[in-house]
Amino acid sequence: MIHFRNDYSDIAHPHILKRLVDLQHETHLGYGMDDHVEHAKRLINKACGIEGYVHLMTGGTSANKTVIAHLLKPYEAVISAQTGHIEVHETGAVEATGHKIISIPTHDGKLTPSLIVEVYQRHSDEHMVKPKMVYISNATETGHVYLKHELQALHQTCQELGLYLYLDGARLGVALTAKPNDLTLHDIAEYTDIFYIGGTKNGALLGEAVVMKDQAMDAYFRYSIKQQGGLLAKGFVAGIQFEVLFEDGLFFDIGQKANQSAEMLVQELHRLGLSFEATPTNQQFITLPRSVVYELAKHYTFELWHDHGDRQTIRLVTTYRTTLKDIQNLVSDIKRLIE
Amino acid sequence: MIHFRNDYSDIAHPHILKRLVDLQHETHLGYGMDDHVEHAKRLINKACGIEGYVHLMTGGTSANKTVIAHLLKPYEAVISAQTGHIEVHETGAVEATGHKIISIPTHDGKLTPSLIVEVYQRHSDEHMVKPKMVYISNATETGHVYLKHELQALHQTCQELGLYLYLDGARLGVALTAKPNDLTLHDIAEYTDIFYIGGTKNGALLGEAVVMKDQAMDAYFRYSIKQQGGLLAKGFVAGIQFEVLFEDGLFFDIGQKANQSAEMLVQELHRLGLSFEATPTNQQFITLPRSVVYELAKHYTFELWHDHGDRQTIRLVTTYRTTLKDIQNLVSDIKRLIE
Amino acid sequence: MIHFRNDYSDIAHPHILKRLVDLQHETHLGYGMDDHVEHAKRLINKACGIEGYVHLMTGGTSANKTVIAHLLKPYEAVISAQTGHIEVHETGAVEATGHKIISIPTHDGKLTPSLIVEVYQRHSDEHMVKPKMVYISNATETGHVYLKHELQALHQTCQELGLYLYLDGARLGVALTAKPNDLTLHDIAEYTDIFYIGGTKNGALLGEAVVMKDQAMDAYFRYSIKQQGGLLAKGFVAGIQFEVLFEDGLFFDIGQKANQSAEMLVQELHRLGLSFEATPTNQQFITLPRSVVYELAKHYTFELWHDHGDRQTIRLVTTYRTTLKDIQNLVSDIKRLIE
Amino acid sequence: MIHFRNDYSDIAHPHILKRLVDLQHETHLGYGMDDHVEHAKRLINKACGIEGYVHLMTGGTSANKTVIAHLLKPYEAVISAQTGHIEVHETGAVEATGHKIISIPTHDGKLTPSLIVEVYQRHSDEHMVKPKMVYISNATETGHVYLKHELQALHQTCQELGLYLYLDGARLGVALTAKPNDLTLHDIAEYTDIFYIGGTKNGALLGEAVVMKDQAMDAYFRYSIKQQGGLLAKGFVAGIQFEVLFEDGLFFDIGQKANQSAEMLVQELHRLGLSFEATPTNQQFITLPRSVVYELAKHYTFELWHDHGDRQTIRLVTTYRTTLKDIQNLVSDIKRLIE
Repeated sequence: MIHFRNDYSDIAHPHILKRLVDLQHETHLGYGMDDHVEHAKRLINKACGIEGYVHLMTGGTSANKTVIAHLLKPYEAVISAQTGHIEVHETGAVEATGHKIISIPTHDGKLTPSLIVEVYQRHSDEHMVKPKMVYISNATETGHVYLKHELQALHQTCQELGLYLYLDGARLGVALTAKPNDLTLHDIAEYTDIFYIGGTKNGALLGEAVVMKDQAMDAYFRYSIKQQGGLLAKGFVAGIQFEVLFEDGLFFDIGQKANQSAEMLVQELHRLGLSFEATPTNQQFITLPRSVVYELAKHYTFELWHDHGDRQTIRLVTTYRTTLKDIQNLVSDIKRLIE
Repeated sequence: MIHFRNDYSDIAHPHILKRLVDLQHETHLGYGMDDHVEHAKRLINKACGIEGYVHLMTGGTSANKTVIAHLLKPYEAVISAQTGHIEVHETGAVEATGHKIISIPTHDGKLTPSLIVEVYQRHSDEHMVKPKMVYISNATETGHVYLKHELQALHQTCQELGLYLYLDGARLGVALTAKPNDLTLHDIAEYTDIFYIGGTKNGALLGEAVVMKDQAMDAYFRYSIKQQGGLLAKGFVAGIQFEVLFEDGLFFDIGQKANQSAEMLVQELHRLGLSFEATPTNQQFITLPRSVVYELAKHYTFELWHDHGDRQTIRLVTTYRTTLKDIQNLVSDIKRLIE
Repeated sequence: MIHFRNDYSDIAHPHILKRLVDLQHETHLGYGMDDHVEHAKRLINKACGIEGYVHLMTGGTSANKTVIAHLLKPYEAVISAQTGHIEVHETGAVEATGHKIISIPTHDGKLTPSLIVEVYQRHSDEHMVKPKMVYISNATETGHVYLKHELQALHQTCQELGLYLYLDGARLGVALTAKPNDLTLHDIAEYTDIFYIGGTKNGALLGEAVVMKDQAMDAYFRYSIKQQGGLLAKGFVAGIQFEVLFEDGLFFDIGQKANQSAEMLVQELHRLGLSFEATPTNQQFITLPRSVVYELAKHYTFELWHDHGDRQTIRLVTTYRTTLKDIQNLVSDIKRLIE
Repeated sequence: MIHFRNDYSDIAHPHILKRLVDLQHETHLGYGMDDHVEHAKRLINKACGIEGYVHLMTGGTSANKTVIAHLLKPYEAVISAQTGHIEVHETGAVEATGHKIISIPTHDGKLTPSLIVEVYQRHSDEHMVKPKMVYISNATETGHVYLKHELQALHQTCQELGLYLYLDGARLGVALTAKPNDLTLHDIAEYTDIFYIGGTKNGALLGEAVVMKDQAMDAYFRYSIKQQGGLLAKGFVAGIQFEVLFEDGLFFDIGQKANQSAEMLVQELHRLGLSFEATPTNQQFITLPRSVVYELAKHYTFELWHDHGDRQTIRLVTTYRTTLKDIQNLVSDIKRLIE
């Protein structure tokens, strides 16, 4: 089987595993109070150009619900695209902490100032929740990215309306290394209030780094992590991984490699005459005859995204492990099958 | 520094790390739907002598709150010793899911049928919560273990009163290999409704295996895990570790080694004339003059448990990595200092 | 000022106040354990043709959140029209109990089997909440009513999919006495799993009667009421009111009177040539030039429903207290102003 | 039957019912935005000597959980006596909003600075909840009252530790008119951060007035009331009652009458030679032979408080409706039965 299923299917990047083995005889303070976590935080802050507050979490849903539960008052709500991960794919984790998600239909999973303003104005009194946070993801659930002027505009709107802007960076690695991208980690830190840098989908065993700039927002955040069940006893396991990812730019290399494979895949598929809206990151959604999908599934892993009856849309995900040969095989098999 | 701080200070047992490295080129289905998790579940079921339902979680607090939130109705409460981990050291994680903990003072952290019956009878109408679960830990927070007849008696009481009996096995490895222990994993499975087998404090990077026998209790448990933020994307990372722990009895070896070191430590300290109530597992609590503790802290790590002013109680924890030499050094330094 | 603002603006129907005064020297058991509550329950059961379980609550939001929190497991969700009261006008009360509302756009606030089936099928695994309840209101938020065949169809769909059907009857009085209505309280009891009969908007000081048929659903419901803060110490205050409402059909008289006034209002407004989609109950939504609304507001109370700029939609609500003269005055003033 | 059961057994004080009847033809804005509520707030502020923020709630449990959920962050906890209403008799309502109650054993239900300091110091890091509020009740659950110097001392401790001091005044009417009492409503307002004045147990149909001094604490409190299900549609029903209670001192008269009856009862019972610890308010707890209690129950209502086997402790509650004759009858019957 050749693998296009997702970006969290292998254990970890070899450099990370090697480091864990190298350090196996060390002992450390628990719960993220150790030197590796401290060092990882410094590296992340440096990469973001800030003196911020960094917390290493065990996963995306855990990070999202903890951030939201920590920052919002009970009657405050978070605005999300209707396709947002918190709205669709977290089994009501945010609601389980007591907060409503106000969801908005969008074309490509990206929010805009006018969409936010409309929601804000509509929620005008105590019979409705009070919007207090805007949740976006970069890359979005469907592989799109925010450009700098778009993020700046969202940030300005949020500032004006007194809303927190929170960016879910589960796939920030591929977002920041996408071809059209003009954002840096410095920009992300500047134009959001809080965000997380995803490790799990970018080479780590597990781990997401939540970053805040504001001391008042950060206050007692470790209490919230612990209460939400996300405080890793062996915090250094996450710390060591983020050290490896941010020492020499491995974090970006991993994203870039995935994108390069995706780009190659897009070119080859377009060359075949397949028509689809390519995304700038490592997720591509293509629609094929059902019989073709059926045959492909014998040799390739991927997710069925949408079933149209005669035709099916599948999601192809590339990663830093995807090889030129993987892509060539896939494309030539598609070619053969659709002919 | 020689380490007696706790049992979760190293990355993982060498066998576990080796296996992760060996398997690094594999890819797997996400969220615990892979073959390693499947195999780990079979191994655990076999060790327990049941055909039960096993779920691998990321940590103890996460396991506890997920189990409790999953099984209890909103107005139902859990009974715990006043020293229970859920009562004291989880930052209100259980209450954050909406449930009251009814806590009971105990001598050694162990509950008894009569303590439970008293609470049950006192909660008699709809102005009070309805007790529905009994939470125990084995080993307890202070290193004690339940004997078979004690667990059987608790189980019978719970059956009679319609209460779930839930056993927190964060330190089940040392409990089941303690000298006075007469319980097996088969017994644990028989005389509780639900329990978890702790990996984090027994050689794993992370991971606790929740085990249930009853299909109705298990129904939709994965929804609860996901909602509570505990569904690991790379579930196989936990699966592989539990495979290693339960293939050849490594789980028990790790616990036994820790206990043997503890036993040796107790003997040596008693030989010094130190008077303290030894526990049968890897946590020992000894009281020393403040000045002695101060000096010891320069070369040994440990936790300060209680400050009596002139004297201080410290906790010494042994692990599978503790060596004979570590113990000899510690004891001879204590001897030197108290003379 | 003449009043068309809403149906909860006076203290209570004179019969209710008279009864409270008559009984002022009685004393009763607290918390709804008294004879008046018992009698009210019997009257309500009789009116519904069942031997059900009745609970008197303090208000609609309290009833809704208590029912939902009581019946759903943490990961289960409720399906509602996008205009549903729980979705829009309860400040996230349902989410505050931990449950997601899956909302669906509709034309007139009424759900249909196909809308429900679509949502049900889309929520297919543990990464999404599990739909378990359908919430409808009759009359809807915008004054429309369900017909018998519509309610039967919803009920059948819910039965097939294993969903609870819950009917919010805050305005059940006007619904069941609306001209097109072909439902009885017997039907409501037969074709839903749980519903409430609204007192507050139908002549009572406060009070809504939750009705369930199923003993298992009812089990421990009083615990849920108490926990949610809705257990009235002086439960008999609600009990006495429902006695008055259901002894001689006052409940229906109050609704009918409001509808008759609404019908008259619609006829008169249509006669003026005003074009609007009339509803069959006591809420009418008409659109007038801004300047007309401005002038009207000097002598009449009503709610501004939507601002279109030049024109504004206002809501006119009739009640059992609305007089022929009130309507004549309003219509003649509108006539004068729009000419 | 002569009634000593509790202080919420009649519908309402005659003055209150009369006023409701007098005003029955008025219409008002909903949800507490009307003139009666406004006037009631002014009267209450005047009685307290402050310019505070007053909110009328439907009941004690609702008030307690709304205040706590509004003010505390998710990981913050409230300290209460082990006999506190929120700890024992609210079916986990506070925990259902996500907050832990740290309960402390006390002699008479009264907290002291040293008890609070001990809890505060013990909760030292993010593995434990963060104490943030102290909950007291006056009168306490067992009829005792705080003296001025006691309340001042608690207040000072709370100020020093950064804790809110919240006073549950379900029975504030009898507390402030008790013989040993030296507190005024001015003092209550000065030496607490937030409190409520109980109406339900002091002559009202329903209603408790929450009072805060601090604008920041009050911010968005109406959102919290609505979310918790406590925003009465007909807020004026509560407003009118508090107008009646605070126009001419009726609130205090009702409490005083109850206390006077209690005092008389105590004197008579002591004269009989009955030995018991009298309380300064309207709840008295006396212990009698089981057979005497059995006979008394044929002609008097009261609650069984504790069953000692041969003897039983019963609670006798006096109210503003208790007559001299009621007391004489009771005492002479007790006398007859114990002789």
